[in-house]
Parts: sequence; C-alpha cells; structure tokens
Amino acid sequence: MSIVVVGSVFFDTVETPFGKVEGVIGGAATYFSVAASFFTPVQMVATAGEDFPADEVAFLQSRGVDLTGLELQPGHTGRWTGRYHEDMNIRDTLDLQLNVFADFQPVLPDSYRESPYVFLANIDPQLQQGVLDQLQAPRVVGCDTMNHWIASARPDVEKLLRRVDILTINDEEARLLSGERNIVKAARRILEMGPKSVLIKRGEYGVIRFAPDSVFAVPAFPLEEVFDPTGAGDTFAGGFMGEIARSGDTSEAGLRRAIVYGSVMASFCVEDFSLARLRKLSNDDIEHRYRQFVSLTDIDGM
Amino acid sequence: MSIVVVGSVFFDTVETPFGKVEGVIGGAATYFSVAASFFTPVQMVATAGEDFPADEVAFLQSRGVDLTGLELQPGHTGRWTGRYHEDMNIRDTLDLQLNVFADFQPVLPDSYRESPYVFLANIDPQLQQGVLDQLQAPRVVGCDTMNHWIASARPDVEKLLRRVDILTINDEEARLLSGERNIVKAARRILEMGPKSVLIKRGEYGVIRFAPDSVFAVPAFPLEEVFDPTGAGDTFAGGFMGEIARSGDTSEAGLRRAIVYGSVMASFCVEDFSLARLRKLSNDDIEHRYRQFVSLTDIDGM
Repeated sequence: MSIVVVGSVFFDTVETPFGKVEGVIGGAATYFSVAASFFTPVQMVATAGEDFPADEVAFLQSRGVDLTGLELQPGHTGRWTGRYHEDMNIRDTLDLQLNVFADFQPVLPDSYRESPYVFLANIDPQLQQGVLDQLQAPRVVGCDTMNHWIASARPDVEKLLRRVDILTINDEEARLLSGERNIVKAARRILEMGPKSVLIKRGEYGVIRFAPDSVFAVPAFPLEEVFDPTGAGDTFAGGFMGEIARSGDTSEAGLRRAIVYGSVMASFCVEDFSLARLRKLSNDDIEHRYRQFVSLTDIDGM
Repeated sequence: MSIVVVGSVFFDTVETPFGKVEGVIGGAATYFSVAASFFTPVQMVATAGEDFPADEVAFLQSRGVDLTGLELQPGHTGRWTGRYHEDMNIRDTLDLQLNVFADFQPVLPDSYRESPYVFLANIDPQLQQGVLDQLQAPRVVGCDTMNHWIASARPDVEKLLRRVDILTINDEEARLLSGERNIVKAARRILEMGPKSVLIKRGEYGVIRFAPDSVFAVPAFPLEEVFDPTGAGDTFAGGFMGEIARSGDTSEAGLRRAIVYGSVMASFCVEDFSLARLRKLSNDDIEHRYRQFVSLTDIDGM
C-alpha cells in the first residue's frame, strides 16, 4: 500500500571531515521518499521553490514517488548549511534560509487521503495535526519531531502524540520530551503520552524500540567509511515505514524486520553525500545488507 | 576448566548521581573473579594490604575463587576515588593511592601454571608479559589495557598483543592504539597487531566484536536504573572469559554466547554499588537475563 510523507525539501551545503558539497538535494521528505520507494509507492507532500530542478523531479518520479502534493512556489527552495565535527555525532548549523518552507501549509491531494500509512516528518506539530485531519482513517501514523518544537510548542507536541502510533526520536529529544535522563524511563514516559512504539535513534549506536511489552535493540551497521550522516534518520524512517506499508505487518516480528530495513537504508545513506548512494542502490544491495545485519546480531552464530 | 586472572584489588570511594559509597571493595581482579566464578573456578593473582578484610576473603572463597595467588603485603590496599557525571559515561578520578599495588610483581603459584585460560586485567604490559611467561601453554589469552599504557609504553603493549588471543578495549583506547578514528578501521588495525578477536566495549551502547572474518554486535541491556558503572568492563570480561573457560567453546557461536553472558553480568554489576548486586546473584537470574537478551536482539521476533 502507498504511504504519505509530509516534510521538507531543501538544498543542503554540507562539510564533513571527508569533503564538502554545495546546494545538493536534501530535506526530510526527500530522504524519506527515496528510501521508502524501494519498498512501496510514496505520496509526497512538500513545498519547494521555482528553482527546484526538473531532473530531481524526474528522479523522484522514476523512483515511484507521486509528486502531486509537491507545491512549487514562487521563490527559493529552503537552504541549510552545516558542518560536522571530527566526531560526526556533532554538527553545527552554519546557516538556515527557510525561504518558501516558511509558509508551508500542507494540503493533501484527494488522491492521498485514503492512504493507510503516513509519516509526519519534522515540521511544526500544528501542521502535523492538520495533515492527520486530512486523512480519512490512517492505519499507522509515524511521526518525527525535534528539540525546537518540544521546547517551544510542547502542548502541540503532546496533543499530536495522542494520535501517533510510532514516534521516531533521538536520545536528546527523548530526554527533553520526558524530563528523564535514563533512556528506558524516558521511553516509558513517552509511551504514556500516546504512541504505541517509541523508536530511539542513536546514530552510530543503532536504534532501540520500546513498546509497552517489549524492547528491541539493533546496532548500526559498522561501516569503514561514514561520509555524511545528513538524512540518516529520515532515511531510516523511510525504510522502516516503507517496509510496514509494503508488508502491512505490524506484529512484533513485522516491526522488528522493518527496523532492520530502516537501519539498512540508513547505512547506505551515510556512505556518500546527499542521495548519491541511494541513487545507485539496488534491491539486491538491500537484501544483501539485510542478511549481513542478521549475521551481525545473531547470538547463535552465523 | 579454571581461569587465571591477574589484576588489581582496590578499595573504591565512588560518587554517582544516585549516591556515594566509601572504601568499598573494587579493582579489576575482584570484579572479574566474582563474575567469572558463576561459570568456572577462578585462580586470582593480585596484591592487597594487611588491611584487606577477612570477610571479603571469605566471600571470594565462598564463590570458588582460589586466593593462593593473593599476596597480602605490609601496608595498605590501593585506593581509588572517583565521581561520575550526570552523564555516567564520564567520570573524574579525584584521588588515586596505589599503596602496595605500586610494587605488584605477579607470581603465579605452581598450582596455577597449567591453567589453559588466563585474563590479564589492566596492569603494566611488562607485568602482563611476565604472567604469560609463567604459564605453561595457555589456550586462550584475554587481555585488557588502558590509555595510560598505550601512550607511555606502546612498544610493550605491541609486544604483548602478539601473544594475546582476545583484546577487550573501549572506543577511545581502540582509537588511540590504532590511530584510526573510525571504529571499524581501528579494529582492523588492532587485529593486524596480533589478537584474533578485538572486543570493543561501548558502555551503555554495548559491545562489538571484530575478528578477521566476522563482526558481532550486541547492545547493552536497557536498565531503568544504572547506579554505578564502576567495574562493568571487568565484570563483562569475567562473564565472557568465564563462559569460555566453562564451555571450552571458541567457535564463532561459542564466543557470541560468551559475549552475551559477559553483557548479562555487566548489566547486573551496574545495578548497585561495588559488588552489592553480584553478591545476591543466582544462576537463575543469569539465565533469565540471558533469555531477555535473546528476545531483545532477535530480529525474527520473540
């Protein structure tokens, strides 16, 4: 089944210890859509400027991403400039120009409204709620957020969480949202706010999922070269939600498999700048790395 | 089969966000021995002062730890004072008094010399080599070290590593030893120095093992209360090496199982100060948590 994603489309300028790229395509909706497209048809809701390149439109469409909901507005696409430290878990935002993204009001095309799967990438929680209001009866609602909204719009975040099935969030956001330093306690508090699952993203240390009756942890795939962590979290979410939409399986086993697919996709994302690695990816590459993940984590040997 | 451990016996004064204890028993050889004792007979080589309490001697003996190699010297047992930050991955050493440990010259009793398993806890690498010289034909040599020796005695560390089967080390030590920031590259470089396995301890993020042809990663057990991380690495090593000595199984599957047992033991260690949790531990507790680890990490569901 198809999945709706709502989020940002940006141009990124990124410097890591391994190099620099300027004005390459980025944004949460972009990374999510490309990753999810390996599993299921994707319906994107986003906004970009008139400067958005026709070849990127063509690329997204070639991946089966429905762009009916991508509004190209007069003006410029948003731009983010960031620099990663030697320890690539740390990055500084050097510049942020929201441009047309500042006025983003997500409107779902009629053809999207029956979609059973939706991912609300990191935008204003009021807009995220507005998206849910436009969906008829979503079966699985995935959601991301960030420190900024937790600190400045907590009531909106809490209201939203009551309508969310799966929250993806990082360590620090989980601590800020819950007021608990310990990550297990933090997750338990967040589960009480509404979500049925909390997925805590820990970058190079992997992902840990908390549900009321189960915990599942998977390491990140150990890579010799991490070129650029930008988009890894959204690519994870794309693989994860894409696999759920493909299989329709929200059992414990189904969600675990989806988490591994998300981790597989994120591991490819960071191997090059922007979408470079995902553009070249094949389904065989994905299945091969999935099997490597099984071997990496299987307590009973290989 | 029995395992020999050589290392420190100390009194620790520890402050964490959850409380403070003064002059409680600690030291790498102590944590290792108690953890390993749940799996196999342990032969300890260490030094303590005449102030070492008779009831701790009795406790260690009650756990099946052979103390023939524990020399009680005139003077005081070593003392370490440390304080953990709110983020308990970070700690400061506030005071260190080596006392009798400053003159530690490990001498193996004759009854230890045929032991097929040995763990060289973190001491001067020249002393670690001296221990190997006293063993007839060890089948598995496990070894720990620290930044101090890597920086100040690198030739001795490198000479030692050529005789080591399994090195346990943390992220930062692995980076310092290898000169590589990326942990996969760091492990590959260290494998070239001699060890057949490198186990990188990542605290709350678990353990990752590198061998020439395989990688295995296991998360730490997610705990709601981490009281005191002191001794977790040595307790891990005790469970890990203890299980290897018990089973004699150094196959890929055997080493993976041993890593999980090490992780289980470390997860108990941090639940209370000093040896408090390990003193109350039962084999049933260990097996129960082992099964929880399987459930925590099993990609195929539970």
